Order: sequence, then C-alpha cells, then structure tokens
Amino acid sequence: MTKYYWHESPNSNHSNDKKIAKMEIMLENDIAHRIEQNPLLKPADFSPLMENSIIECLLNPGVFEYEGRVGLLLRVAERPVQKEGFVSFPVMDENNTIHILEFEESHPDLDLSDARVISYKGKNYLTTLSYLKPVFSDDGINFYEDPNHPPLLPEGKDEAYGIEDCRVVKIDDKFHLTYTKVSSTGVGVGYISTSDWKNYERHGMIFPAHNKDCAIFEEKCGETYYALHRPSSPELGGNYIWIAESKDLLHWGNHKCIAATRQGKWDCARVGAGAAPIKTEKGWLEIYHGANYDHKYCLGALLLDLEDPSIVLARSEEPIMVPQAEYELTGFFGNVVFTNGHIVKGDQIQVYYGASDEVVCRTDFSIDEILNTLLSDDK
Amino acid sequence: MTKYYWHESPNSNHSNDKKIAKMEIMLENDIAHRIEQNPLLKPADFSPLMENSIIECLLNPGVFEYEGRVGLLLRVAERPVQKEGFVSFPVMDENNTIHILEFEESHPDLDLSDARVISYKGKNYLTTLSYLKPVFSDDGINFYEDPNHPPLLPEGKDEAYGIEDCRVVKIDDKFHLTYTKVSSTGVGVGYISTSDWKNYERHGMIFPAHNKDCAIFEEKCGETYYALHRPSSPELGGNYIWIAESKDLLHWGNHKCIAATRQGKWDCARVGAGAAPIKTEKGWLEIYHGANYDHKYCLGALLLDLEDPSIVLARSEEPIMVPQAEYELTGFFGNVVFTNGHIVKGDQIQVYYGASDEVVCRTDFSIDEILNTLLSDDK
Repeated sequence: MTKYYWHESPNSNHSNDKKIAKMEIMLENDIAHRIEQNPLLKPADFSPLMENSIIECLLNPGVFEYEGRVGLLLRVAERPVQKEGFVSFPVMDENNTIHILEFEESHPDLDLSDARVISYKGKNYLTTLSYLKPVFSDDGINFYEDPNHPPLLPEGKDEAYGIEDCRVVKIDDKFHLTYTKVSSTGVGVGYISTSDWKNYERHGMIFPAHNKDCAIFEEKCGETYYALHRPSSPELGGNYIWIAESKDLLHWGNHKCIAATRQGKWDCARVGAGAAPIKTEKGWLEIYHGANYDHKYCLGALLLDLEDPSIVLARSEEPIMVPQAEYELTGFFGNVVFTNGHIVKGDQIQVYYGASDEVVCRTDFSIDEILNTLLSDDK
Repeated sequence: MTKYYWHESPNSNHSNDKKIAKMEIMLENDIAHRIEQNPLLKPADFSPLMENSIIECLLNPGVFEYEGRVGLLLRVAERPVQKEGFVSFPVMDENNTIHILEFEESHPDLDLSDARVISYKGKNYLTTLSYLKPVFSDDGINFYEDPNHPPLLPEGKDEAYGIEDCRVVKIDDKFHLTYTKVSSTGVGVGYISTSDWKNYERHGMIFPAHNKDCAIFEEKCGETYYALHRPSSPELGGNYIWIAESKDLLHWGNHKCIAATRQGKWDCARVGAGAAPIKTEKGWLEIYHGANYDHKYCLGALLLDLEDPSIVLARSEEPIMVPQAEYELTGFFGNVVFTNGHIVKGDQIQVYYGASDEVVCRTDFSIDEILNTLLSDDK
C-alpha cells in the first residue's frame, strides 16, 4: 500500500443547509457577473493533510457534474509550518513518501525572491506541494467534502512536487482529468480517467515538459479528438496556446500554435486555455487567461472554427474579466483571476475560478454577451 | 506552384571518382576513430540556393542507405551577404517566399551577442535559414549531389525560420524523417516520410515546442513505437532526454524523462539524443550529445533496456568523443561535435557528425568498445 504522511481527510466545516439566494455583483470594466457569496472557499475551510502543515492556497478547480451535484476538484497547496530563520518545503520521494527539506533562511545558496519557488544551488523547488480534493454542492455555491471521494494525491517521480490545476471533461460516461504534473525533471500534462471519483486510472504524461493548461474538447470534430495545451519555450516562442489532435486521448500529434501573446495588450506575457471549449452556433468558445508583465491575470475569449478548431475566428481585444474585487487583488499571489472549470446552463456559464492564487470564487457569464464582444460589427 | 527565391540546385563540385583509402586518426581522450579525410564536406563545396547569400554552416546530417549508396541529409544554413554597418537575415512568409530583413547594426533595439540569434525589440530571429540537402556516396567518404533528389525546403508558417538537424530511420520500406521546425512561435519536431527521396509526405509537428533531437527507434518494442526527444524547460527541469510511445508514429504519449543533465560532469548543461538507438544484445545503444556551461559539445552513450527502453541500464561517465581535432575546435560555433546519423556495419558504427557547427565529418566507433566503457566491472 502507498505510504503517505497525510492525515485522514476530515469532514467539511461547511454546512450544507445554508440556502443563500444567488446574488450577482457587477463591477466596472468587465462583463463578469460575480456572485455575492464570493469567495466560496478559502484555505481555512479545510484541514491540511500533511503533518505540521498549513493550507497555503486553495485554487483553480476543475468542475464537473456527478450524481446530481456540482463537483469541484480543488487544487490544495500545503506548506510546512515555517520556523523563524528557516525555510522548509515538501518533496515526495519515489515511494510516494513526503519529506520536508529545511534550510537556514540566510543560506548563501538560497534564492527566495519568488513566493512560489525556492532555488537552492541552482536547483528549483516549490514552496508548496499540491494535490486535488473533490468537494460537492447541491446549489453550486455551498460546497462540502464527501468522505466517499477522498483526495487525489500525487504519485510517482514525475509528480514529486505535486499535481495542479485539473481540467475535467466527460466523454462517453467517463470523466477525463488533465492536470499539471510537477517534478524536478519538468512540468507536463498528466491524464487520469475515472467513472466514480474513487477509482482512478492513470495514463501517464500526455504532453511533455514544459506544458500545462490542457483542455480536451468534450466531443470529437469528425473522427478526431482535440485538446488545447500550453507549451512554454525558453528561446524562440513563448507561453502560447496550442492545439493537438488524437484518436484515443492517449497519444497526441499535429501540434499547432493558435494564439500567441500580443505585444502591448493585457495578454502580452502569457496566455493559456481555461476549461474545455463550449460549443456554440458561432464556433467553439474558449475562455482563456492572459497575463501581462506585471503578472496581472485576466480572462478573455477565443472563438474557434467548429469543424477545424485550429482556425481562430475571433479573439477578445479587451478582457472579459479583470481582477478588481478585493479577494482578486490581494492574496498569496495577488491580481489574479484564473479559471479551468465551469458548468454551462443554456446561455449561462457558471465559471469557478481561483482568485489571487488563494481562494475559490464563482462568476457567471452570458454566452451571448461574450460572443457580442467577439463578433461586434467594428471587427 | 510554390514560389521560392531559391536558385536551381547546382551539381556538386565533388568528383565521384576519388578513391581514397579509408584512414583512421586516433586522438587521445576518447574512443572515436576519426577518418583521415575529415572534414568530408564544408560550406564552400556547395552553392547557396538563396540569392545574394552564402552558406554559413553545413552540419548535422541525417544518414540513410538508398539504392546501394550512403545518403546524407545535410543541414545547410544560409545567410544573406552582409553589408558593412548592417545586419540582415532571412525569414520565410506564409506563402513560402523568403524575405530579407535588414537593420542598421548600431540600432539600439538590436542584440547581436549570440552568433546564431538576432534579437530585435525582444523578438528573436535566426541569423541563418536552414534547409535539408540530400547528398550521396558510393564509398561513405566522397559525397556528391544528385539532381534527381533536390533539397527539402521549409514549408508553412511553423518552418518560417527553417528546418534543421534531421534524423532518418527506415521502417517498413519507408524513410521516416524527424527534424526541427523553427519559427517565431517556437521550435518543435516535424515528421516527414518518403519512399524515394523525391516525394515527401508531411505529417505536421509531432512534439510541440520547445523540442528537438527526436530519434525514432527502428523497430517496435512489443506493439509500441518509441522515440527519444528533448523538450526544454524554462523553469523546473532543463534540457533533458525523454522517451515517448506511439502506435502510429503520428500521435505520441506516455512521456518520461530518462536522462537529465549531471551536475559537475561533461554533460551538465544539456543533453540530447543522436540518431536512432542501435539494437545490441546488451540493450539499445544510444549515442547522445552532452554540453557543459562552456558550450563544449561531446558525445556519450546510453544503454536502454531492450523490452522497456525507458529503463536506463548504463550511461557514460566520460565522453566517448571530445572535440579536439582542429576542425572540431574552430568554426562557426567552435568546440562542438554533434551527431544525428550513422550506418551500422557489424561491430562498426560509421558516425557522421557536425564539427564546430560548420563542417561535416565522419568517425567510426566499435560497438564493443563503447559497451566496454558502459559495462566495465567497477560500475
């Protein structure tokens, strides 16, 4: 049996019987309809699984519907309680056992300039270790843990630094999870499938380093599965959105770059796909994130051709969502809205998102409103 | 018809009737048996295809046998003739037409610190544009052009900066070419197949950015094709050798890192696969390149499990080839030996290699000699 230094998963602190009417908050500068109950989930709502640790961030959930409930697959990032004068961080070994590495803060070979990364003698580690926790809701607002569905933990050497930011799609009665595998050898896209959120089948890494933000389309175009993904390049190229093709979801080819960063715009530094594209009459609608050089993460939209989704029909000139609520401006890594999951109800997209890399929120969008910004006459 | 600013491919300057006996040169510090006729090919041996251009480098050939001859698929890198005070470089547009961009050398937005890359306003270009030229030989030493087999030119927007460093394997009577596609959106691995070296079938990009050094195994292990490849990571990870699996050569999955760089060794900065692994009784023998932080490129070997080649059985502690001949030390980018092609004759591997990113050479190795360095008793 796999040996973990994880605690038992506790039941939720959240009560399931709060029935708060959904309220929307409209802020200026974007077309997001934030709900009044934001933030829905924060680190203090759950107990850490690692000994002597805290939950530093709760973020970027995959979203799915299961047995009549809304499910979020939260990314939970834990960190050892820090002792004054020292820095410590978790790393998993090849037997899936967590070890805590500890250094004196003043160590000359240590670089702590980034809140997310620890550099020691030129080798990079993460300050936190992430896993994926499913939580459920009857109303899409109040979420609770379900002991029948324990957390999904990192496994194997290419997940030694954790697993992050999972997208979930349902194809042929199975849930398909694409997520970020993180280790010292690189950051790539893992693929897991499940039917019951208890038994998981692992299919290895489907996009090699450096890659993340992978969203599989929920249906084939013709005979072909498509996925958006986000390779990063150290030299030519950058942090751009690409598309790939597959016949079996396991093996991928015919990679094409479909959306680069745009000089001088809100998405000049990096872009990446959100959740699976939404099929509309006008094309596949993809909500993506874009960041500028100040690390301000906004959301925008892409419209892709229905038959050949490698063709971009339209792209947001201005973001459809800009961090501006207080919980979006301040947190573990402020000025960030980031989504990788939603539920579609007719014209309404219920978007769950991570705010400031710390809390989980929800905002709703109207598909028509987004399409209007993409297809207005003056374009 | 595709419009090119290429000249007609001229016939070779090489005479086919020189019959020089093969001689070997043994240098200290490695087990490479360099042939006396090195360098076999240099830029002056061919005429450039672009107008007003020179061949800057001739390098890194893929190697194959075709109709009783040895074929090299040379990488030819051309550059416009430079005018004093200006820097100019070629870029291909979406209609496969070459344009020459020219800037004043003193332009404040220009960065010319790397011989291979031009940076202008933060966007990177290459100083040269590469294509692939087949040449043939009856003796493995004297090579000549064959007008029946014209050069393979870049095509499409993801090859706008050229195509480079092709590996060739023969599977099921077809030649399979994996090479580097270079453009502003990134560097990835392209795949082309041919039966006759005249008609080429293009299969798109099989490994997305940032990736190169892809070598497909010449036979399946069980039901699975394998390929080595070399993604590069801007953050965690680095320039490491990975392996991937395929059922059809077009779509690839189950990516695993099998060889990282090694701190303090000759391959501390970057490693990448050479040509297809050689099947031996002891395992798959792969000759790879490794570089240190001074950009000194040597060759080493990996021994991979015959049934599961993601398992590394042995790895060179010391390089099997170190740049030391004069043509390996001085050139367009000196101190480099780099191979991506060979012919195997019993125990002998006839390795063709690029030296100093400028000329093409040959060295022979003994498989037994390499295996002895890998499997000596004290390991």
